[in-house]
Amino acid sequence: MKIFKNPPKDTWHQLTERPQLELEFLDGAVRNVLNRVRKSGDSAVRELTLQFDKVSINTFQVTTTEIEEAVNSVTSDLQKAIRTAASNIEKFHAAQKRESLPIETMPGVTCWRRSVAIDKVGIYIPGGSAPLFSTVLMLGIPAKLAGCGEVILCTPPDSSGKVNAAILFSAQLVGISKIFKVGGAQAIAAMAYGTASIPKVYKIFGPGNQYVTKAKQLVTEDGVAIDMPAGPSEVLIMADDSSNYSFVAADLLSQAEHGEDSQVILVVNNEKMIDPIQNEIKNQIQSLPRKTIAERALVNSRVILLENEKDAIAFVNEYAPEHLIINTRNHEEIVSQITNAGSVFLGNFSPEAIGDYASGTNHTLPTNGYAKAFAGVALESFMKYITYQKVSEEGMKALGPAVEQMADAEQLAGHKMAIRIRLESLNKK
Amino acid sequence: MKIFKNPPKDTWHQLTERPQLELEFLDGAVRNVLNRVRKSGDSAVRELTLQFDKVSINTFQVTTTEIEEAVNSVTSDLQKAIRTAASNIEKFHAAQKRESLPIETMPGVTCWRRSVAIDKVGIYIPGGSAPLFSTVLMLGIPAKLAGCGEVILCTPPDSSGKVNAAILFSAQLVGISKIFKVGGAQAIAAMAYGTASIPKVYKIFGPGNQYVTKAKQLVTEDGVAIDMPAGPSEVLIMADDSSNYSFVAADLLSQAEHGEDSQVILVVNNEKMIDPIQNEIKNQIQSLPRKTIAERALVNSRVILLENEKDAIAFVNEYAPEHLIINTRNHEEIVSQITNAGSVFLGNFSPEAIGDYASGTNHTLPTNGYAKAFAGVALESFMKYITYQKVSEEGMKALGPAVEQMADAEQLAGHKMAIRIRLESLNKK
Repeated sequence: MKIFKNPPKDTWHQLTERPQLELEFLDGAVRNVLNRVRKSGDSAVRELTLQFDKVSINTFQVTTTEIEEAVNSVTSDLQKAIRTAASNIEKFHAAQKRESLPIETMPGVTCWRRSVAIDKVGIYIPGGSAPLFSTVLMLGIPAKLAGCGEVILCTPPDSSGKVNAAILFSAQLVGISKIFKVGGAQAIAAMAYGTASIPKVYKIFGPGNQYVTKAKQLVTEDGVAIDMPAGPSEVLIMADDSSNYSFVAADLLSQAEHGEDSQVILVVNNEKMIDPIQNEIKNQIQSLPRKTIAERALVNSRVILLENEKDAIAFVNEYAPEHLIINTRNHEEIVSQITNAGSVFLGNFSPEAIGDYASGTNHTLPTNGYAKAFAGVALESFMKYITYQKVSEEGMKALGPAVEQMADAEQLAGHKMAIRIRLESLNKK
Repeated sequence: MKIFKNPPKDTWHQLTERPQLELEFLDGAVRNVLNRVRKSGDSAVRELTLQFDKVSINTFQVTTTEIEEAVNSVTSDLQKAIRTAASNIEKFHAAQKRESLPIETMPGVTCWRRSVAIDKVGIYIPGGSAPLFSTVLMLGIPAKLAGCGEVILCTPPDSSGKVNAAILFSAQLVGISKIFKVGGAQAIAAMAYGTASIPKVYKIFGPGNQYVTKAKQLVTEDGVAIDMPAGPSEVLIMADDSSNYSFVAADLLSQAEHGEDSQVILVVNNEKMIDPIQNEIKNQIQSLPRKTIAERALVNSRVILLENEKDAIAFVNEYAPEHLIINTRNHEEIVSQITNAGSVFLGNFSPEAIGDYASGTNHTLPTNGYAKAFAGVALESFMKYITYQKVSEEGMKALGPAVEQMADAEQLAGHKMAIRIRLESLNKK
């Protein structure tokens, strides 16, 4: 980790920068995949799956027999753990339901909102070395709570044409039955445009590699909504001398092991803490199977000493971390001043790992500084509001003249006429 | 208007299509503007303003003297009308505030959310023939209610270098003081990247022409959030023999006058209504100053006869109109089955014009079928949620083992270690 001691504010924009990884060829390569799927549907998806996943898939949809087999192959301990996590996630997201009452903005003018589920949504779950069944819970549970009509899931097949058992178990647990063995940009294309076997959806959720992320960004040009723009995962930990240094090191490493491009930032208020924490990292990293990945991630990571607390808070808000662990004595005081973060973990016994899996909060969060304007996935990500208004004859009489004035000033005579014709009909009464 | 009688479902995708207007050169032209502003800041904005708005602007920010002069030049009738509208808009949006209470998802595991204002937002208001001061209210009021730290407004200068007085009056009324005389893609670029005189913001709101829309779409690639993707404005009216045909015609025309690319759809359940409504349109259109625009918009517009009510509702949900006027006897029954629409107007005395200006609902709404996944602008568009969790020692003991199980199954040993190290410290106690 690189160490910066009380860096002056005019250098902060460099210290809050994320690695820019987009490769030049990506845009063209992904557009090509999207176009092929759009044009040739299932046959293009089949070809691309053979090319990228090295497996020939005839029927994309996972069968009920496959799901049953998978469910039976998951150990009862893991099943129980997944059920516990699902229960917490469901409680937290169910509490996000809102009723909106009608408002009479003036006598005779009644306005209200109703949140309505997005009818068709698609969930993407990456495969590969770490099968993210936890993300099935994080996206599937709010989709089902929202009441989305059709929830489909795409995930790449392994080299034998199978889908990870824990992914299938989690999908079945949350009530998703339409699961397709398709990965990468071709999965995003299939959900965005539809094929004979994979239905078109209105909004696509889920993490993925650079190809998946680029594909999600590009399909928005065709009017398909996505959960949020995505970048590599990141954590920022604020620590002081009340922190347990081995906890801090473990939390930094649990982020670093995600990928070489993960970012790990440690903000401390005392120089003396830096060496002990670094030593803890050196010790703990030895036991990690993903040691090489974590080591590479740490090369781009930073320790920042900010002795002034106000500066430390300002720096965190400028960085806008996806995950923020506040591991200081006065964490309650600090957290009230944090305005930009995805999810915040308070105190010594709230590691990021617990939110990643099971506390109940969502782990699909804004990276790359997007927390300045975006929130993580929540129940409302699977819904949208419709607004309504009903104006009575009295309301029209009271409000109509103001609308005429404004339409006049905006030079929209047709708008004025729509009011005038009604006011005249009321005057005749 | 083109007439379609009981069209079979397999033709609906054509009937719900919007005109595709994107021109080939647009992407390159707008990228060029963005790059120039990004590289040369104010001097590029100055050059582009001279090129496109034909006026040389030295100081972009509108002075307090200019604002005072504008305020004094707005007639008291119009001031009063704007205040009435602002009051309704404020009431409706203030009612959208939400408190989120902490949830104990299991003993010792507490999760909550807090909605926090987006710190820096930018509002774009088009100039030109119709100065949309109503949009200043629709975006400025929720921005201020949300508590955004910095709210700036960009709008193009006229040929004498001035900004429309009603726009300045409305901005001052809602409390926006940083107003810049910049329009087009260069305004979006200035707000996205910042210049010496125009601050960088995190989210950009507001309507605009194709250049503005394209610029908004492109800056999202650099992590700037936008309110929503935009297309030409549109209305769909459902009418039956209880409708007042001259009201229906006036409402269709008030949408058609917006622009040649406006879309106007009329869904009727009885063939006999078509001619009388068409005749009303022919009569009323004569008096419109924007008659030519409205006539051109009507060329692409459609009357659709659907005698079966279920079909009519299914068609509306498939079209997903920005504005939906339900002008039928049983509008309460129909509205409960509408799942895709931006804003809905119920009954004979709720024309779109009243929502465009003053009922209290927001007029910044999803067009182009985006209502399938997007909502209109609301208070929460200017805020984002942060999630929090605090786990006690007891909570860690109860939940930690489940997280270890899941981390193991996802092959993330670092995540498991972050739990293990804490459970071990608790066992030692």
